[in-house]
Amino acid sequence: MKKSLLALAVLGTFAGVASAQSSVTLFGIVDLNGRSIKNGSTTQKQQVSNSLNSNRLGFRGTEDLGGGMFAGFWLEGAMNNDSGEGTATGGGQNWQRRSTVSLGGRFGEIRLGRDYTPSFWNTTVFDPFGTNGVGSFLNTAGTGAITTATTYVRANNSFGYFLPGNLGGLYGQVQTSLGEGVDANKQTSVRIGWAGGPINIAVSTGKTDLATEYTHNNIAGSWNAGFANFMAQYDTQEAGAAERVMYLFGVVVPVGQHELKFSYVNSKGDGPLNGVDADQFALGYIYNLSKRTALYGHYAQIKNKGGAAFVVGAGPGNATNDKSTGYEVGLRHSF
Amino acid sequence: MKKSLLALAVLGTFAGVASAQSSVTLFGIVDLNGRSIKNGSTTQKQQVSNSLNSNRLGFRGTEDLGGGMFAGFWLEGAMNNDSGEGTATGGGQNWQRRSTVSLGGRFGEIRLGRDYTPSFWNTTVFDPFGTNGVGSFLNTAGTGAITTATTYVRANNSFGYFLPGNLGGLYGQVQTSLGEGVDANKQTSVRIGWAGGPINIAVSTGKTDLATEYTHNNIAGSWNAGFANFMAQYDTQEAGAAERVMYLFGVVVPVGQHELKFSYVNSKGDGPLNGVDADQFALGYIYNLSKRTALYGHYAQIKNKGGAAFVVGAGPGNATNDKSTGYEVGLRHSF
Amino acid sequence: MKKSLLALAVLGTFAGVASAQSSVTLFGIVDLNGRSIKNGSTTQKQQVSNSLNSNRLGFRGTEDLGGGMFAGFWLEGAMNNDSGEGTATGGGQNWQRRSTVSLGGRFGEIRLGRDYTPSFWNTTVFDPFGTNGVGSFLNTAGTGAITTATTYVRANNSFGYFLPGNLGGLYGQVQTSLGEGVDANKQTSVRIGWAGGPINIAVSTGKTDLATEYTHNNIAGSWNAGFANFMAQYDTQEAGAAERVMYLFGVVVPVGQHELKFSYVNSKGDGPLNGVDADQFALGYIYNLSKRTALYGHYAQIKNKGGAAFVVGAGPGNATNDKSTGYEVGLRHSF
Repeated sequence: MKKSLLALAVLGTFAGVASAQSSVTLFGIVDLNGRSIKNGSTTQKQQVSNSLNSNRLGFRGTEDLGGGMFAGFWLEGAMNNDSGEGTATGGGQNWQRRSTVSLGGRFGEIRLGRDYTPSFWNTTVFDPFGTNGVGSFLNTAGTGAITTATTYVRANNSFGYFLPGNLGGLYGQVQTSLGEGVDANKQTSVRIGWAGGPINIAVSTGKTDLATEYTHNNIAGSWNAGFANFMAQYDTQEAGAAERVMYLFGVVVPVGQHELKFSYVNSKGDGPLNGVDADQFALGYIYNLSKRTALYGHYAQIKNKGGAAFVVGAGPGNATNDKSTGYEVGLRHSF
Repeated sequence: MKKSLLALAVLGTFAGVASAQSSVTLFGIVDLNGRSIKNGSTTQKQQVSNSLNSNRLGFRGTEDLGGGMFAGFWLEGAMNNDSGEGTATGGGQNWQRRSTVSLGGRFGEIRLGRDYTPSFWNTTVFDPFGTNGVGSFLNTAGTGAITTATTYVRANNSFGYFLPGNLGGLYGQVQTSLGEGVDANKQTSVRIGWAGGPINIAVSTGKTDLATEYTHNNIAGSWNAGFANFMAQYDTQEAGAAERVMYLFGVVVPVGQHELKFSYVNSKGDGPLNGVDADQFALGYIYNLSKRTALYGHYAQIKNKGGAAFVVGAGPGNATNDKSTGYEVGLRHSF
Repeated sequence: MKKSLLALAVLGTFAGVASAQSSVTLFGIVDLNGRSIKNGSTTQKQQVSNSLNSNRLGFRGTEDLGGGMFAGFWLEGAMNNDSGEGTATGGGQNWQRRSTVSLGGRFGEIRLGRDYTPSFWNTTVFDPFGTNGVGSFLNTAGTGAITTATTYVRANNSFGYFLPGNLGGLYGQVQTSLGEGVDANKQTSVRIGWAGGPINIAVSTGKTDLATEYTHNNIAGSWNAGFANFMAQYDTQEAGAAERVMYLFGVVVPVGQHELKFSYVNSKGDGPLNGVDADQFALGYIYNLSKRTALYGHYAQIKNKGGAAFVVGAGPGNATNDKSTGYEVGLRHSF
């Protein structure tokens, strides 16, 4: 996820205002692979984006306002490069991965716009598969009443505050998003964590004003033992009486340019979703040709029971009470 | 609205053609706020783009062709950053704010593509609120027969000519746009003005080939008294017998990094729109953190009568024969 | 089609991996004209994109991985600049002209994503009008059973291989694209050619798994005699019993900054399309103001018979068994 820096020429200075030191960055990721998905007894060969990292195109920049203050913007959109579309779901390029303007200083950062929710961010930081590809933690995250929250990953019309970076390892953020007449967009979420030496641990909680209030809680951490980085998380989503409880155990083992990854995810339903359960394991191998370019292979399998129909990737089959298995070999290039 | 300049490497020169000195500029504005709109008796809290300046993303560049000649392009699209969309109305990024190619020289500039109409440009230059936010002149500009002109702001398939910049303060432009089978796109417009010392004054007239021909006339000017810049305009739109007559009085008072803004707009209907009237006043305060970054606050109110239902901002209520009131506090960052 | 180079700052180096020398390029073309189309007896005046070259906006880059290896990406989308749309057919900017990630080296290049098909590429390289504008070879390329192949120009989900550039003038590529459940996207194509001195010659063949298998074959070549570059091609498309056979003869004559172009295209149907024939001639003049900027004029006419209704440009008339005539005068600027 390296960046190209465009030199910014400030063509003049505002009367009485300090001149700005600034940069605008163009950045992106093109990640494509060959994938085979077997849901139940049906197999399909595919070419897919977003498997090692999420495909993206973006522009971002910061301006030094003096006195420790800064302003910044961030425009980042998804891409489906297998078909040349500028979104994850078809259509032209947009900036729905992140579209924000910020004002920051010693007090932290205030951020407005469309952004990740704090409660989601906790799940993706502590996943060896980064919520991407056939091994993603998200594969078994939602079904039935639990899938109705459009704010699971990101929120529109959000106002966020981030703690400053100098609190001795303590970090945190709080976010609230306006519904503008749509309850499903009305969300509040908070995240707090601590990172020091080999340890990183964080908790998050968020709620959305659905007809039945939707709540998402997560506690997660990682321990970098040097030869390997171990990760674990415990995650619950509630929508009225319906509940989904998940835990993850994962590990990333770097060996020079190589990386080995493993994760196990257990996903259990409760209330109306009682018994709608699945577990998933995933194996990955990454060969880093450079910091920006990697070849990778992933293999993952989900076992569904109690009516669950989770899949490691979209395809024509049906995995209800059955297995979903997938593997993919691809190339990720970032700029 | 500052710009980042990308160095352009011309990788060779055409046989017999002078080498080009060139630049390509990436530019944009992200402007987001918290807004409260009360239309009639209903209030809604919102996060909104486009309130101090119109949100945008663009690329533009010029090439020096030698002998005073130049070629250039301009691609500029809107953004709804509160939801990450690349247009003002949803969907992917496009270049519908301006999408042109130009050839210029001592004779002036010839410009092809989608562009502002001259008749609109007169209204936005002489408005303290720049046609943006709750205080925009546009809020009371159209209803009934008058709203049918899609060419009020911009035109597709346009051919334009601009006078050169060395005519002792005289400036002007003429534009015609092809309908390609759609009368509502068939438009011709002209604008001429003079700027010298503290004075800037301009007139414009445009017509569009609707079933009932649509005409838009504007005369406007500003006088910069140093401590304050005063603006006024008189604007008429006609569609058959229907007419809307508007005038604006505005002032901008700069105080160091601060700016105070005020405008009053009177909008009267005539013919079938007789008595469909409104007036609007708007107050604004801008704190310029730098040339590129500003905090701002706006307050505006419209009073409708005779069946008018103009609003300072979209929302769930109904302002027919009632007030529409809004305020917004936001952050604008340009790059 | 010159490019602006953005300096790429690699912000660190991966442990054990050579640092990258890299660049990201922003590039594009804005080409607009005034056009008159007469189909049968109906004439329309238009402003049109894509007439000398296809309008486009893109980002591309390569990374030197050391040892002759490289990685690269290419994002290129169409634009309709007469209306500011970021595609050829309306809607936001996408990257459907090309959207690929590559890994290359002494062995050649492996390319994944959406890309031109090899069988199409042969037709466009050997056309004086580059498959653009009123004189395009494509005008008479498809009707009836032959128009059903969505893979005629480009393919989604493609895996391609290109020969390396050091084979003494021999070049070639092979591509296969996955259907992912849609037969019309399942395509395989190969192209091989040789360029040396004034000669360039290439053959291509491709097939798509439609209900009736679709095949596209092309053999083409050019001979640059110095004062003029002569081009010819022979092209067949088959869909079951239906067939379209085309040949082209063309010439480009450069005179300093000027270029004169001529092409003649003959298009014959066979099987169910027997007698559905047309021929087209096209004249062009280009005045290169610089390597990047050109003024141009094109004139072309199609004569249809046997029920053919080919047109030199879209418009309101009907050219069945009649003539379609068009001319256009425009400005192309590339960056």
